[in-house]
Amino acid sequence: MERHFDEELKDLKEKLLHMASLAEESIVKAVKSLVDREKELAEDVIQSDAAINFLEIEVDEICLKLLATRQPIANDLRFITSALKINSDLERIGDLSVNIAERTLELIKQPILKPLLDIPRMAQYAQKMVKDSLDAFVNREPNLARDVCRRDDEVDMLNDQIFRELLTYMIENPKTITRSVDLILVARHLERIADHATNIGEDVVFMVEGKTIKHHIEDQVRGTD
Amino acid sequence: MERHFDEELKDLKEKLLHMASLAEESIVKAVKSLVDREKELAEDVIQSDAAINFLEIEVDEICLKLLATRQPIANDLRFITSALKINSDLERIGDLSVNIAERTLELIKQPILKPLLDIPRMAQYAQKMVKDSLDAFVNREPNLARDVCRRDDEVDMLNDQIFRELLTYMIENPKTITRSVDLILVARHLERIADHATNIGEDVVFMVEGKTIKHHIEDQVRGTD
Repeated sequence: MERHFDEELKDLKEKLLHMASLAEESIVKAVKSLVDREKELAEDVIQSDAAINFLEIEVDEICLKLLATRQPIANDLRFITSALKINSDLERIGDLSVNIAERTLELIKQPILKPLLDIPRMAQYAQKMVKDSLDAFVNREPNLARDVCRRDDEVDMLNDQIFRELLTYMIENPKTITRSVDLILVARHLERIADHATNIGEDVVFMVEGKTIKHHIEDQVRGTD
Repeated sequence: MERHFDEELKDLKEKLLHMASLAEESIVKAVKSLVDREKELAEDVIQSDAAINFLEIEVDEICLKLLATRQPIANDLRFITSALKINSDLERIGDLSVNIAERTLELIKQPILKPLLDIPRMAQYAQKMVKDSLDAFVNREPNLARDVCRRDDEVDMLNDQIFRELLTYMIENPKTITRSVDLILVARHLERIADHATNIGEDVVFMVEGKTIKHHIEDQVRGTD
């Protein structure tokens, strides 16, 4: 019955990677359902979220059990407490994909507003950030994690751009208001997904280097912020 | 130099309560700056967020140190891992108040759209939820925590109501679009603050009773969801 601590940690990593792949898939599907106006796919995203939610509970339990029974220190301790946080971030990414899918269900009841180009691009960025942040976590790569944090600015810029463009649509033609607001919300959900990936990146840097890069503290110390 | 574990836990509680009171204050001030159109107050909210951010780092360090040096089990372990999560929630509540203050700075450049009634009401609810969720945490009161989670629905309903009302403004008069969208975003920030309070409430129930109420699992078991 006795298992090695290393094996338990490996299991935990695999659970989080699995969860991340489900979260990534939910982003891709949610945005595909929006672009291709596929009701069933949007409903699938909403249904599938339960799997991520159950994994969240499982990962929490594993972490607590490891902390209680293994009483880890140093690296292992930081790994497990990071896993606890990353777990919440992944769960919320799943929720945000559900929010996008819910917007899709509203949007496909109405005529197409415009061909969507920036939103799928934003989704691609956000999905890659989630993927890379998890890779940085399991492979202990702080440089990749820092890179993820930097990419957050691009997503924010795309979000601003989408926001501005949709404002002009609404102002020119009030009939587009409901649809435009829905698309603004989709862009914000994607921006928040990128924020969660950034949180994960920050946690990875802290886990590996013991350094806090949250809140631009590195920049502040260097006096550039 | 040696301190008692109980004292260290008491310190941790006090830090989190202090952080929560700063977070609550930031919500109140952000919404007051919006309602009274006070630029300085909005700027104050943005400036003051640094204090919450520093506390977040401090609380994280305290939790990690306690886990490493005290190797807590059972109740104490659950208390500390809950503190880690609540810490993130409080920090994000601070960020959301900053987002509201940023919207205020945009909104006060433009004429008043309408007297704000529902947004301050929503803010009051959200602030009370934050307060009660932290009280439930430090006093180990799962019933109060459950009550917080239930109140989330009221905030969601107010958010929907505000959203619908502002849509009608935009449709009637496209000149109000920018301001209406800003107010829709403020309402969403408040809704997310309430979501974070709900997360804290769920963590408290788990901490005290070992029961997961996230994702309506209790309801599912009872077959009502």
